[in-house]
Amino acid sequence: MQIDVILTPSELSDINLSGRWVAVIDVLRATTTMVAALDAGCRDIIPCPSVEEATRLAETLGRENVTLCGEREGNKINGFDLGNSPLEFTEPVVKNKTLLMSTTNGTSVISRAKPATVLSIAGFSNAGAVAEFLASGGSDILLICSGKLGRFSLEDMLCAGLLAGLVWEGNPEAILSDGARMAVSLYKKEGKSLLKAFKQSQHGEYLISLGYLEDLKYASQLDISKTVPVFKDGRIVKS
Amino acid sequence: MQIDVILTPSELSDINLSGRWVAVIDVLRATTTMVAALDAGCRDIIPCPSVEEATRLAETLGRENVTLCGEREGNKINGFDLGNSPLEFTEPVVKNKTLLMSTTNGTSVISRAKPATVLSIAGFSNAGAVAEFLASGGSDILLICSGKLGRFSLEDMLCAGLLAGLVWEGNPEAILSDGARMAVSLYKKEGKSLLKAFKQSQHGEYLISLGYLEDLKYASQLDISKTVPVFKDGRIVKS
Repeated sequence: MQIDVILTPSELSDINLSGRWVAVIDVLRATTTMVAALDAGCRDIIPCPSVEEATRLAETLGRENVTLCGEREGNKINGFDLGNSPLEFTEPVVKNKTLLMSTTNGTSVISRAKPATVLSIAGFSNAGAVAEFLASGGSDILLICSGKLGRFSLEDMLCAGLLAGLVWEGNPEAILSDGARMAVSLYKKEGKSLLKAFKQSQHGEYLISLGYLEDLKYASQLDISKTVPVFKDGRIVKS
Repeated sequence: MQIDVILTPSELSDINLSGRWVAVIDVLRATTTMVAALDAGCRDIIPCPSVEEATRLAETLGRENVTLCGEREGNKINGFDLGNSPLEFTEPVVKNKTLLMSTTNGTSVISRAKPATVLSIAGFSNAGAVAEFLASGGSDILLICSGKLGRFSLEDMLCAGLLAGLVWEGNPEAILSDGARMAVSLYKKEGKSLLKAFKQSQHGEYLISLGYLEDLKYASQLDISKTVPVFKDGRIVKS
């Protein structure tokens, strides 16, 4: 078993995803929000790489049958029902709904990672469950940090370090890539105070400036969910 | 002043280099070798992104007037004079020569970084000198890790962490990007035993398997040179 970490989505173009069990990480906030949405009882989530694709799909499926959600520059998209804050995705709002979701980083990375043999979704909120799920496959594991606009994001790397460390603990014979080794090392050093690390990160600072401090607090909670979202037949559902 | 680190060359496509003072890092081995070559008295180094370009340029300049050097898959290129080991670049071999150099990672990254306002070359061997040079500009600083075949390399990140930390020490008001913060953190944790870290890295392991352990030892030496190579008018020369 190899445990590999992709630090920025641009590395994806050099990698063969077939045969790998993959987790996409976008802690602030897409993957944290997806876990929250599934826990609030939504039926499924269709990740859409662009706003246009989400809008077109909403017309095809019937606007009344879907909930359009996502963000651009951190804020709700014009004409959409919800933004990208995990706190918006409560049971009264999303139960039994199909969500069409388009975010700047997370959903486009998920779309690019479709060739993976197994494609799951991870944040701190469900890290323990995802680590157990990935380890159960016995295959090579790839953790993809979504980052921000093609650049590296600290919070995603910390989550990758937690996941890689958990899988490695149970599989000490696994081979760690340079990226995985660095992520594990980073999490050991900075993982004790996640919220502090988020607040100092570039993306965290930006979200706070938009008024989303509560989202940072939510996303820094460890293992509040046992849900492992997986991508199947074009939709994200509970595994 | 901002201090930013590019973890993999693929991030380069999302970045405006104009106005920045840049250092390209390819510890194993291109940038370490360039410093060694300039210290051994070579006249200049012309980085060539491809073998074909190096060969064509050798014909144009006159094969007898240049030294062709570089590697593919770690070994000397067929028909070239030298490989990419810093130990080959001694005074009797390269003094007053123009080197045409093509390596898998380092020289192609240098070619892509040409739009930078100032473009310098760094390894551990000249880290202190480069940090001083970069800080003297007072501009935004970008450290580019060359990596290996588009993927992240631990040894380049460690060198970026050393450089970022040195500049930051003298400029505590500087803003660190997430990548720079992580690099500084990583160097603090693993910088005490560079050779050990190199040996455990993916690229280091590969080079050892080819018989280049001595190159790892050479590249792990700190501040053995005061040379700051810079890219000017298509050539790398001492600043």
